[in-house]
Amino acid sequence: MENYNPLIIQRADPYIYKHTDGYYYFSASVPAYNLIELRRSKTISGLAHAMPRTIWRKHATGTGEESELIWAPEIHFVNGKWYVYYAAAHTTEFDANGMFQHRMYVIECDATDPMETEDNWVEKGRVQTPLDTFALDATVFEHQEHLYYVWAQKDPEIFGNTNIYIAEMENPWTLKTTPFMLTKPEYEWETQIFAVNEGPAILHRNGKFFLTFSGSATDENYCMGMLYADEDSDLLDPASWTKVDHPVFTSDVEHDLLGPGHNSFTVSEDGQKDLLVYHIRNYADIKGDPLYDPNRHTMIQEFSYDTDGFPVFGSPVQFTDLSN
Amino acid sequence: MENYNPLIIQRADPYIYKHTDGYYYFSASVPAYNLIELRRSKTISGLAHAMPRTIWRKHATGTGEESELIWAPEIHFVNGKWYVYYAAAHTTEFDANGMFQHRMYVIECDATDPMETEDNWVEKGRVQTPLDTFALDATVFEHQEHLYYVWAQKDPEIFGNTNIYIAEMENPWTLKTTPFMLTKPEYEWETQIFAVNEGPAILHRNGKFFLTFSGSATDENYCMGMLYADEDSDLLDPASWTKVDHPVFTSDVEHDLLGPGHNSFTVSEDGQKDLLVYHIRNYADIKGDPLYDPNRHTMIQEFSYDTDGFPVFGSPVQFTDLSN
Repeated sequence: MENYNPLIIQRADPYIYKHTDGYYYFSASVPAYNLIELRRSKTISGLAHAMPRTIWRKHATGTGEESELIWAPEIHFVNGKWYVYYAAAHTTEFDANGMFQHRMYVIECDATDPMETEDNWVEKGRVQTPLDTFALDATVFEHQEHLYYVWAQKDPEIFGNTNIYIAEMENPWTLKTTPFMLTKPEYEWETQIFAVNEGPAILHRNGKFFLTFSGSATDENYCMGMLYADEDSDLLDPASWTKVDHPVFTSDVEHDLLGPGHNSFTVSEDGQKDLLVYHIRNYADIKGDPLYDPNRHTMIQEFSYDTDGFPVFGSPVQFTDLSN
Repeated sequence: MENYNPLIIQRADPYIYKHTDGYYYFSASVPAYNLIELRRSKTISGLAHAMPRTIWRKHATGTGEESELIWAPEIHFVNGKWYVYYAAAHTTEFDANGMFQHRMYVIECDATDPMETEDNWVEKGRVQTPLDTFALDATVFEHQEHLYYVWAQKDPEIFGNTNIYIAEMENPWTLKTTPFMLTKPEYEWETQIFAVNEGPAILHRNGKFFLTFSGSATDENYCMGMLYADEDSDLLDPASWTKVDHPVFTSDVEHDLLGPGHNSFTVSEDGQKDLLVYHIRNYADIKGDPLYDPNRHTMIQEFSYDTDGFPVFGSPVQFTDLSN
């Protein structure tokens, strides 16, 4: 597999899911934060040229929930139906804590082809958690017939912006258990400018669950951290999870590979190689609010495992040389 | 040359300029209509993965001119400096004629690398024409030491939305002569849903100037028309120009190649082949205002000439098959 990097221009928070129909499905934040779109291709490189279909649009500005800043949609296939988890705000203003006001939502589609028409997508509403605070970046995974929900949320009692939680789900839009906090920003590398743990992603390999996440401000300080748990442990028990004390994937400032993070995982076309999907910036001198700078780009690269079965992500690959 | 089509996802009104530094520079409308960006690559196919740089941002909403709907930026190199011509409105609302309220503007950069930083770009303000009406889609070209400006504008005295005009320029931001109208929407193929002539592009070949433009509504009715003039004629004289009575490039509805238009021209890497650049839609069932549907994509394809030296554009090429 030879892929260009960046793979996809101006798509942040990238998520790639390889379905049983042979297609790679791709969802991500769009620069206007105004809609959810999907694209698909039978090859990863083809995603760069695959024509998106809009599957959901934000509610009209000023009408309340889900009317602004649609972030980090992830497409999942659960119990034979399609779901997209995303975060949305009712305003672009900050709350009293100086934070955005996102909550988490989900839409459902029971058609075979999730890109056929947006008419096939139904709003299942907000995913409720006990705390009514800034919440985002939900992902789900299944294990031994349990469905788990993992996300980032603010707790007013805890220093910093967001921590990462896990809960079991009763169905794809409702939690069954209380949330359990798995990690909060505590080390230097996850508290640069902002104390943040967000963008969780799950990798199930070698008898373990690995949970990667992103820490610090979303500039060149942004980086990936990791937790792991034995696959037979109680995944809802924070004591089952161990947090690696150092970041596992960071900027390469010399080559303008800045702030790699908000990752997901997929596999190569032949199913033999694990691939890391993430976004990156290629310049630091951003004018104005970085949120409205569209130039976070989707990257993809192989990674390997050490002799203990732990993933070794290495460093961000160089941008493809386009001069030939 | 083997290029994927679409070449670039979600870029409308595409403009590609091959500079003396060996780079192809690309400018186009972005889906959020909020900024002007450039990308460049030494190959055309590389433009799909080339990382854009923002070079100018719209003024803040509510502050007057150039604060909304930045459309159709074109990058040109004139007298040793870079210019980008674009249209902008002061509001997203319609005027009394039910039309958008764009006027034409230009920015200038005297750095060698136009992508180095947006700090190098200076606003030269509005390009004034005698009529204070909806105006957009400006392009410029030089011939025998004269600089010409070609654009689309509403004349309240003429039926329809916009006509196409030419004038000579005193400098890259000021007209020297009055405008001369070269074409207005009159045939059936340029008056479907809306009577429109817009998106002019200039091709100088075989002793002639060819002026292509786009007509009708921007759905599957959108198509390209053409005028031509002898290169030695007075280009400001409408009588020098002959309008072809039929469209020269239209939809292929059977293959979902819909509304090709707003074209520009470039040449292959070896300089031997002329290439047509345009945008297209791939589905007709758009929800809501088509203006806010981001899925107009940049296409590129070769074209040839007939025995009289006239361009033969053929039909839109099929989308590249991404299933392998």
